[in-house]
Amino acid sequence: MLRQRGGGYIRGMPVPDLIEADLTWIDGRFEPGVTVSLAADGRIAAVTRGAAIPGAGAASRAGGAASPARRRLRGVALVPGFVTAHSHAFQRGLRGLGERFPDGAGDFFSWREAMYALVESLDEARAEELSRQAFEEMLDAGYTSVGEFHYIRHLSPERRFALDDAVLSAAASAGIRIVLLHTAYEAGGFDVPLRGGQRRFETRGVDDYWREHERLSRDVASIRDGLASIGVVAHSVRAVPWPTIKLLRRGSRERGQVFHMHVEEVQREVEDCVAAHDRRPMRMVVDELEPGSDFTAIHCTHTLAADLEDFAKSGATACLCPSTEGNLGDGICDLPTLRASGGSIAVGTDLNSRFSPQEELRWLEYVQRVARTRRGVIVDDRGETGPALLRIGTEGGAKSLSLDAGRIRPGALADLCAIDLEHASLEGASAEMLASAIVFGTGPECVLGTWVGGRFRARRGSTRCL
Amino acid sequence: MLRQRGGGYIRGMPVPDLIEADLTWIDGRFEPGVTVSLAADGRIAAVTRGAAIPGAGAASRAGGAASPARRRLRGVALVPGFVTAHSHAFQRGLRGLGERFPDGAGDFFSWREAMYALVESLDEARAEELSRQAFEEMLDAGYTSVGEFHYIRHLSPERRFALDDAVLSAAASAGIRIVLLHTAYEAGGFDVPLRGGQRRFETRGVDDYWREHERLSRDVASIRDGLASIGVVAHSVRAVPWPTIKLLRRGSRERGQVFHMHVEEVQREVEDCVAAHDRRPMRMVVDELEPGSDFTAIHCTHTLAADLEDFAKSGATACLCPSTEGNLGDGICDLPTLRASGGSIAVGTDLNSRFSPQEELRWLEYVQRVARTRRGVIVDDRGETGPALLRIGTEGGAKSLSLDAGRIRPGALADLCAIDLEHASLEGASAEMLASAIVFGTGPECVLGTWVGGRFRARRGSTRCL
Repeated sequence: MLRQRGGGYIRGMPVPDLIEADLTWIDGRFEPGVTVSLAADGRIAAVTRGAAIPGAGAASRAGGAASPARRRLRGVALVPGFVTAHSHAFQRGLRGLGERFPDGAGDFFSWREAMYALVESLDEARAEELSRQAFEEMLDAGYTSVGEFHYIRHLSPERRFALDDAVLSAAASAGIRIVLLHTAYEAGGFDVPLRGGQRRFETRGVDDYWREHERLSRDVASIRDGLASIGVVAHSVRAVPWPTIKLLRRGSRERGQVFHMHVEEVQREVEDCVAAHDRRPMRMVVDELEPGSDFTAIHCTHTLAADLEDFAKSGATACLCPSTEGNLGDGICDLPTLRASGGSIAVGTDLNSRFSPQEELRWLEYVQRVARTRRGVIVDDRGETGPALLRIGTEGGAKSLSLDAGRIRPGALADLCAIDLEHASLEGASAEMLASAIVFGTGPECVLGTWVGGRFRARRGSTRCL
Repeated sequence: MLRQRGGGYIRGMPVPDLIEADLTWIDGRFEPGVTVSLAADGRIAAVTRGAAIPGAGAASRAGGAASPARRRLRGVALVPGFVTAHSHAFQRGLRGLGERFPDGAGDFFSWREAMYALVESLDEARAEELSRQAFEEMLDAGYTSVGEFHYIRHLSPERRFALDDAVLSAAASAGIRIVLLHTAYEAGGFDVPLRGGQRRFETRGVDDYWREHERLSRDVASIRDGLASIGVVAHSVRAVPWPTIKLLRRGSRERGQVFHMHVEEVQREVEDCVAAHDRRPMRMVVDELEPGSDFTAIHCTHTLAADLEDFAKSGATACLCPSTEGNLGDGICDLPTLRASGGSIAVGTDLNSRFSPQEELRWLEYVQRVARTRRGVIVDDRGETGPALLRIGTEGGAKSLSLDAGRIRPGALADLCAIDLEHASLEGASAEMLASAIVFGTGPECVLGTWVGGRFRARRGSTRCL
């Protein structure tokens, strides 16, 4: 944890400060001697190369005192905070569940039954508790922002939207930045009514949706330090009638808010959509929803190359959730086509069974490698994998949520993550290959803590003080 | 770390002791109230159900004093130590390297070039240092035994086998149990001579191999506390002529030592073998090497169902290395066939880019799920995934290395791992679903420490004392 020092930091207080880590992730590489100035408004005021903090380096190590407001973070690499662009926080309550298959193998839909059982059991307190657990574990793992794809709403027919506050309160209490992705959910399938636990998700048409959206927008604005914002979501083509989806998308553009939607996670969704509309979901998205840089499709597991290409060229983002897609057995997205078309990628923790941005990122690549028996599917313009993946986990996620984060640059949100260069798993890593060493060789145990809007929070269980 | 108490534990000293954790992994499930007695010979003397240690439970929590030699491990689940059945320790030096693809995508063989560059640079001190790093990180992650598939041998033509000691010294210094898998390596391919870095692997025919094997057996026997043993290895059908492989296998049976071999990791090996021998490698193994419970084939990535079935039915083990196969882009093994035929499975860390048994185990299953769009590929006889995977990581590995470990039972080696039940990621996990919660939701940060032959070692960075 941060120790109180002279006129400098007090634990959790967003006071202006200058920090210099051994290495800082700037413009796609790690650089030494970078000073980052954190402003009181929770943003990065300045980033200075080559202007080492007085007292830093060898002299400081030998005992030179730094100015109280200036901090030399020794044995630390500073990266932008990771972003999970797709989360269902309450599903933290499923950890270790839904893994029993007495009748042989299961699939996405057998898992969903376990999830619905959890849904039916949740009250406000439990929903908030599970969400808080998830958000705190996210911070421990190095995530500083979450795109919370929020669809569990009602406590009962009499207490509609009673669970909306739970997730916002949990985020505020944990101290994570949240984009509340307000989710429309109207049907149990194409022309199938809601049933059972699904009734807790219900929105009743587009007017009902926007009314709640206005209310939620006010709630979001009341969260301290501007840590919360809002986005527009149609759950999927199977859960929202197409005319409503088009209206929601138009509303998101009018409001300048991001639009998210599950797209082609499972084959059955694709087949049902073709049966109902004679087109696949992504084709409909591309043809009618004007995807662009404010648009994110979650999963895209079964999307055809031609559709993926058109989607990618629009500047839109595909958010993949490797550990969730692995757990649910969804399938394997055509990432080579997505990358070749210049598509943006983000990652999400989705069902929140495991929190480790590094694990999500390396398995984003590894799943592609084993499926295609080739290495280096996701590379940057220098042909490097680690830096490309690190950017997906930071910049890619920030773009998906329309957050001015994910890069360490002046004016951006001061959302940062401190990586422990003294950890055994990074022994021997040079600046040149550090991004790959972090992405391929580390996990939460290498995270010292995070800054969200300039506020530092130590990882629980970390033994090193910064 | 263990604190010194009365006549009880002293850090690292294998004194007789009784320990009772909240939950202990016995016969495929977690049970409360199990007392494990650790004997001075490094084995488990007794396992007693239902006989709680005096002073344990609520009374003890309220201040009741336990007998000095008896320890109540609160907030701990005790599992057998994990086993990595396949490791090349020196490849720890590649972490973060080999991830640049300036000419587009790479494959196994482009990676191998990076590995050979490391091989050429190693001297004895560096080989030992990298091995020690790997073994210590393994212990931190919860592995208590390693099958070290050792093939880097020579410092120079004049100093043959100079690197053999490095790996044994490193293991002894780290305190991990090692099975030195002594590897024959004679050729650069079918009828291709050794070249470049490969010359450092060279064995010169079967007599040369057994001479070194006798010497290594003496070295292994000199390691304290019986922490080291030896096995027989033919690197692969491409690196050892078939007649030599048959002689090595016969020698392993005569000596009662395990036999390991890489089998069908990449398609090129299969194709070259078919060209040279008119049969695929696994077919030759099944037809001519008498696989059985002492036989482990590493990878089996491209093995045909019929061959895999015959191999599995012999009682032999397939050792998969999920994160390595992911990194190298090897491909996807036919695990449903292997499981349906009753085959044993172990996991290995192989190139040692990442140490997390839980991650290896969950991705063993996840890769199968995404490839086959179904869940629950690896389940036990109750249809459960987590327990089945936990057994693969412990019993499966111990069987592959012929170690009397991997289960907590009287007479077995006292190789254990303490899991932190107070860690946030296990909040809410009941005994019934704890195995799945551990396998699917945790990593090294949940490991408090390990016992190897009854000696406790705390995870570096752990904040909780046992």
